[in-house]
Amino acid sequence: MPMSTQTRRRIHRIALVTFALVLVPWLAQAAEDVSYVNQQSGDILWLVIAGTLVMFMQAGFAMLETGLTRAKNATNIMAKNLLDFCFGALLFWAVGYCIMYGDDVGGLFGWSSKWVFSSALVPGGDGSGQAFQESANWYFQMVFAATAATIVSGAMAERTKLIGYLFYSIIISAVLYPITGHWIWGGGWLSNLGMRDFAGSTVVHSVGAWAALAGAIMVGPRLGKYAKDGTSRAIPGHNIVLAALGTFILWFGWYGFNPGSTLTQFDGLAYVAVTTTLAAAAGGVVALAVSWMNYGKPDLSMTLNGVIAGLVGITAPCASVAPWAAVVIGAVAGVLVFYSVLFFDQVVKIDDPVGAVSVHGVCGAWGTLSIGLFGSRSIDILYWDPNTAIHNGLFYGGGLTQLGIQAAGVVAVFAFTFIVALAMFAIIRATVGLRVTDEEQMLGLDIGEHGSNAYPDFQMSSTANTPTGPPADNRGGL
Amino acid sequence: MPMSTQTRRRIHRIALVTFALVLVPWLAQAAEDVSYVNQQSGDILWLVIAGTLVMFMQAGFAMLETGLTRAKNATNIMAKNLLDFCFGALLFWAVGYCIMYGDDVGGLFGWSSKWVFSSALVPGGDGSGQAFQESANWYFQMVFAATAATIVSGAMAERTKLIGYLFYSIIISAVLYPITGHWIWGGGWLSNLGMRDFAGSTVVHSVGAWAALAGAIMVGPRLGKYAKDGTSRAIPGHNIVLAALGTFILWFGWYGFNPGSTLTQFDGLAYVAVTTTLAAAAGGVVALAVSWMNYGKPDLSMTLNGVIAGLVGITAPCASVAPWAAVVIGAVAGVLVFYSVLFFDQVVKIDDPVGAVSVHGVCGAWGTLSIGLFGSRSIDILYWDPNTAIHNGLFYGGGLTQLGIQAAGVVAVFAFTFIVALAMFAIIRATVGLRVTDEEQMLGLDIGEHGSNAYPDFQMSSTANTPTGPPADNRGGL
Amino acid sequence: MPMSTQTRRRIHRIALVTFALVLVPWLAQAAEDVSYVNQQSGDILWLVIAGTLVMFMQAGFAMLETGLTRAKNATNIMAKNLLDFCFGALLFWAVGYCIMYGDDVGGLFGWSSKWVFSSALVPGGDGSGQAFQESANWYFQMVFAATAATIVSGAMAERTKLIGYLFYSIIISAVLYPITGHWIWGGGWLSNLGMRDFAGSTVVHSVGAWAALAGAIMVGPRLGKYAKDGTSRAIPGHNIVLAALGTFILWFGWYGFNPGSTLTQFDGLAYVAVTTTLAAAAGGVVALAVSWMNYGKPDLSMTLNGVIAGLVGITAPCASVAPWAAVVIGAVAGVLVFYSVLFFDQVVKIDDPVGAVSVHGVCGAWGTLSIGLFGSRSIDILYWDPNTAIHNGLFYGGGLTQLGIQAAGVVAVFAFTFIVALAMFAIIRATVGLRVTDEEQMLGLDIGEHGSNAYPDFQMSSTANTPTGPPADNRGGL
Repeated sequence: MPMSTQTRRRIHRIALVTFALVLVPWLAQAAEDVSYVNQQSGDILWLVIAGTLVMFMQAGFAMLETGLTRAKNATNIMAKNLLDFCFGALLFWAVGYCIMYGDDVGGLFGWSSKWVFSSALVPGGDGSGQAFQESANWYFQMVFAATAATIVSGAMAERTKLIGYLFYSIIISAVLYPITGHWIWGGGWLSNLGMRDFAGSTVVHSVGAWAALAGAIMVGPRLGKYAKDGTSRAIPGHNIVLAALGTFILWFGWYGFNPGSTLTQFDGLAYVAVTTTLAAAAGGVVALAVSWMNYGKPDLSMTLNGVIAGLVGITAPCASVAPWAAVVIGAVAGVLVFYSVLFFDQVVKIDDPVGAVSVHGVCGAWGTLSIGLFGSRSIDILYWDPNTAIHNGLFYGGGLTQLGIQAAGVVAVFAFTFIVALAMFAIIRATVGLRVTDEEQMLGLDIGEHGSNAYPDFQMSSTANTPTGPPADNRGGL
Repeated sequence: MPMSTQTRRRIHRIALVTFALVLVPWLAQAAEDVSYVNQQSGDILWLVIAGTLVMFMQAGFAMLETGLTRAKNATNIMAKNLLDFCFGALLFWAVGYCIMYGDDVGGLFGWSSKWVFSSALVPGGDGSGQAFQESANWYFQMVFAATAATIVSGAMAERTKLIGYLFYSIIISAVLYPITGHWIWGGGWLSNLGMRDFAGSTVVHSVGAWAALAGAIMVGPRLGKYAKDGTSRAIPGHNIVLAALGTFILWFGWYGFNPGSTLTQFDGLAYVAVTTTLAAAAGGVVALAVSWMNYGKPDLSMTLNGVIAGLVGITAPCASVAPWAAVVIGAVAGVLVFYSVLFFDQVVKIDDPVGAVSVHGVCGAWGTLSIGLFGSRSIDILYWDPNTAIHNGLFYGGGLTQLGIQAAGVVAVFAFTFIVALAMFAIIRATVGLRVTDEEQMLGLDIGEHGSNAYPDFQMSSTANTPTGPPADNRGGL
Repeated sequence: MPMSTQTRRRIHRIALVTFALVLVPWLAQAAEDVSYVNQQSGDILWLVIAGTLVMFMQAGFAMLETGLTRAKNATNIMAKNLLDFCFGALLFWAVGYCIMYGDDVGGLFGWSSKWVFSSALVPGGDGSGQAFQESANWYFQMVFAATAATIVSGAMAERTKLIGYLFYSIIISAVLYPITGHWIWGGGWLSNLGMRDFAGSTVVHSVGAWAALAGAIMVGPRLGKYAKDGTSRAIPGHNIVLAALGTFILWFGWYGFNPGSTLTQFDGLAYVAVTTTLAAAAGGVVALAVSWMNYGKPDLSMTLNGVIAGLVGITAPCASVAPWAAVVIGAVAGVLVFYSVLFFDQVVKIDDPVGAVSVHGVCGAWGTLSIGLFGSRSIDILYWDPNTAIHNGLFYGGGLTQLGIQAAGVVAVFAFTFIVALAMFAIIRATVGLRVTDEEQMLGLDIGEHGSNAYPDFQMSSTANTPTGPPADNRGGL
């Protein structure tokens, strides 16, 4: 029997109402869910990949540092670079993450009992996925903390006791880095003021460098670095190939460092890769040219430093300047690093074997300030998508207001980090000790600290100051 | 003329019915398609990226191994590490993948004619995308097989013939690794029993290590390793910087190894990065402390092994334990690896130049068992999303039942791998040969096997036992 | 009072009409948006990650090249490899990208004022996201340009002036590479003809190699390379471990090079990883076997070259051949590279210290031609999804027509690149100079060009020809 028109209409209506009341909202929800799930899992994927690239920068720092220092200290330098990451990860888990990203306390630091031992990372059973997002955040932030920590190693290389260095590592990862990090990235007072530091020219690099400056001052120069009349002597590194490899690794890892600081899988991350590339290239080219003009020869280790200086410089402004400005920022960093290295080495007479203070401190400050000079609201990629308005939303673009805020941040972070680090190293020096004995320094820290030899199968040159050779260094002007 | 109410109603109804019958189902399908397409392509992307990170671990193993052995064998070690990957990839394609993931045959191995030469990878023309998913699976599994294969290289370093080593590579990649892999990951009997090994503490690391143990026994110790009275002598590695670089690379690659074993682009992969980091850091710190307490000096090569031991240990439980448990698992691995290296070196007197059996075997077993001690159903990230219930769904959480199952798996895999590998190496020894001559060993395998010198521009030290120096080694207690 | 049936019906109808007119189109749009946004951000993510892997190949080339050459030139080789990337990035930004991908001019090159200084990369304020896509494209293409540029370094190693090399770098990145790149990838005449080169066997590798051939001819052989009677002498590299590390890094980076050339995050990228792996492995195994048969010993540097030859060979056909064909293509490349190295070294007598012309040129041509032999329309992954029909859509599959097109492309690119590069190097030689003095070559370019020593702590062997040793080289047959 054919269905009556009446019945057919009724069925249609029921079906339509069903769609209206059930399916359409369900579809809307499903579309949102798809979007959300894909976006969240994409964000987490990107944070893990980018964080892993940043983690690999530890190898870059280790290779660069050992390449620019002497063979007799290579084991010690490897130990410090590996161990500051190990201690850094554990301490940033135990307490650092809480201080940096816990509930804001007066704009100064974070704290919340639920964040100690990063307990927010533990997945419960509620299926909310919040713990997983937190895990991604922690992982990405942890590798940044470890980067700041490891910068100090280079400036204090070749004369620092391992035990003293380990205490330093613990303090910077647990407290020192997280506090200023909270100010700028964790919702603290500099963040509220409108300071911008996209990927950490100040938060990461300058903090590491100002601690390095304090450390280099407190531990004193290497034996023989300064003659009795104060003349600075060059102490050549033992393996420029490893130094170059380290630079390539750092550059490689920087594509996690800067583009990863978008914190989301969003279209703008490629733009950050562009500015990062251009600044690094310009820094290298300009440092080459400046060294060539000054020395009459193209200096490779200065060129390596120029590349890293360009990368440090673009780290803060990478998301809010035009490509041509990235070239300018990198080029200026390439000039700055050259004269800054000379200044600290020959004028201030602070022994920084790898130029860490100049590369990460001076160029980090430059990069942070450059936002005030070249930053543009119309370019700033954070305005492309409200979901990505991260770190903070205040941005005056280029101009005096922004420049003043940036300068305030640079000064505040310098003052706090430098003073606290000086005190910290003074305490370490007075307790577990900071500087190895002169005898140990002459023999090399590999023998003195570790009882081993990094290259036992190779014959060292008579000037290498290895255990088998005569000591060539003399006590400097400490 | 205005449209009559009747006509308007009719048009509305037709439109609505059209929506109901056509658009709404289409929308639902579209939303599902979007979800599916994005998920699948996201999964494939992640498998390729993670697999590539794991592939790079080959470089890490090569650097670690050559760093911890002598300069005169560096060419040979590079050759073995590169070639076991080449042969491994070809053999795992030809037959290994079929044995591991083909149709289950009695719980013991896989087989299916369509899998030989991994023919399932060939895209047809049906547009199903199945072959592409299979390609991603193969790629990711292949790099794991190659990891197991290359572990053996270190334990047999400095005295094994290249031809014998290549035969071994072929057999482990084609047959030995795939069989136990099938038991646990391919739907075999241990999988059905409920054994859990998320990323391969047993499947990859222990299998490599037990084969390495058999190989080290069959090839005998290096000349001069054991004095006539059986005393073990340290044979220092020739480049601790390369060993440290290798460790950094391995750690870097492990973020593909463990998080990649989610096999999908899903939120939980960041959590795996967290546990992996913490265990590695704890392993390094504890091995440092133990070596410091025992030797009076912090030993770098033991610290490197501690990091890797922590990574091996967390590989099985990384997705089902709390962060604090990851710290404990890594710390215990750091202790275990120290005493295990001493045990094999000085008590059992098996010459394992890089400590591969301790790092990958003992700590792999520990990691597998630790699921029974620390595993938690409420944490296990596989339960967060039914799509990700991979490997197998049986999991009793921590407790005696799970511990027993894990122990059964550890014992079964040890017994099978060790016995078959002993037989394999015996056959290789009896046919193409396994051990180079004493003269070749004294000259170095670089000259003996390859007719070349890894470092011709450098002057070797008199104790390096290079072709130009006098032989320093004496025949050991083989 | 209960609602009348009439009123209820009216409300239902209004609601349904609302859904029909508003919600359903909105949902359709939302679903499309989700799909588009996720796809675009996924594509950009993948381009950045893959590009970063390719960028790291710069480190691989640097390590490979310095490993295969002498210690006294290590600083210079690092400088060239770093600086060609720096100059390459800046020049490809300023003009190269415009010439390669600007509006097609007669099929010969691209040009458009809006592309100079890659101005299309600057985000405006329109929220279209186009600039971000462009940024990803530029980044990915830039690292390819830099790869082509750096290939030349190896063939001209150990006797080329830095200033001459930098001029070459500028020209290849700004003009030479982009022009032939435009022909094949930028919509030029070879593209219109149907030439296929998925990831650049010809576009990148052969172009670099033909420029290298011209450079090696123009700069002449190293001192002492050829005896007075024309006999070729082997000049061993100073660090085979670094050469092997470089090969591992190159292989690692190739998973960005080939799978990344899908340009989208799509399922087929895993398939490309499979063919890439198999060809590399086959190339290594076959080069090992060929060298073993010819020399009586397995030669490691030839095996390294075999792996890279396999990778170069599969670069063009990786997306359109079966896995078994990838094995064949890699194996043939492993044979070709061996005999080609002998041919150039001993028959044509062109001094190419790392075999770059053979690895990248000969095997690049082989890979390009192999599409005509093994390419299959039914396999070609570009046909799986219309969105991914990139590069160009013309493909005749295997067969004479395609083979002829491929051969035309190989010949055209060789002729143009080789002739223009010869002229370029002639001009450089006549102006800033191309070859260092014999004295400088004997001392090493590190001293001569840079005034530094790569390994000051190590004692060099008497044959290393370092500043402290006697010159061992004699002027060759230039």
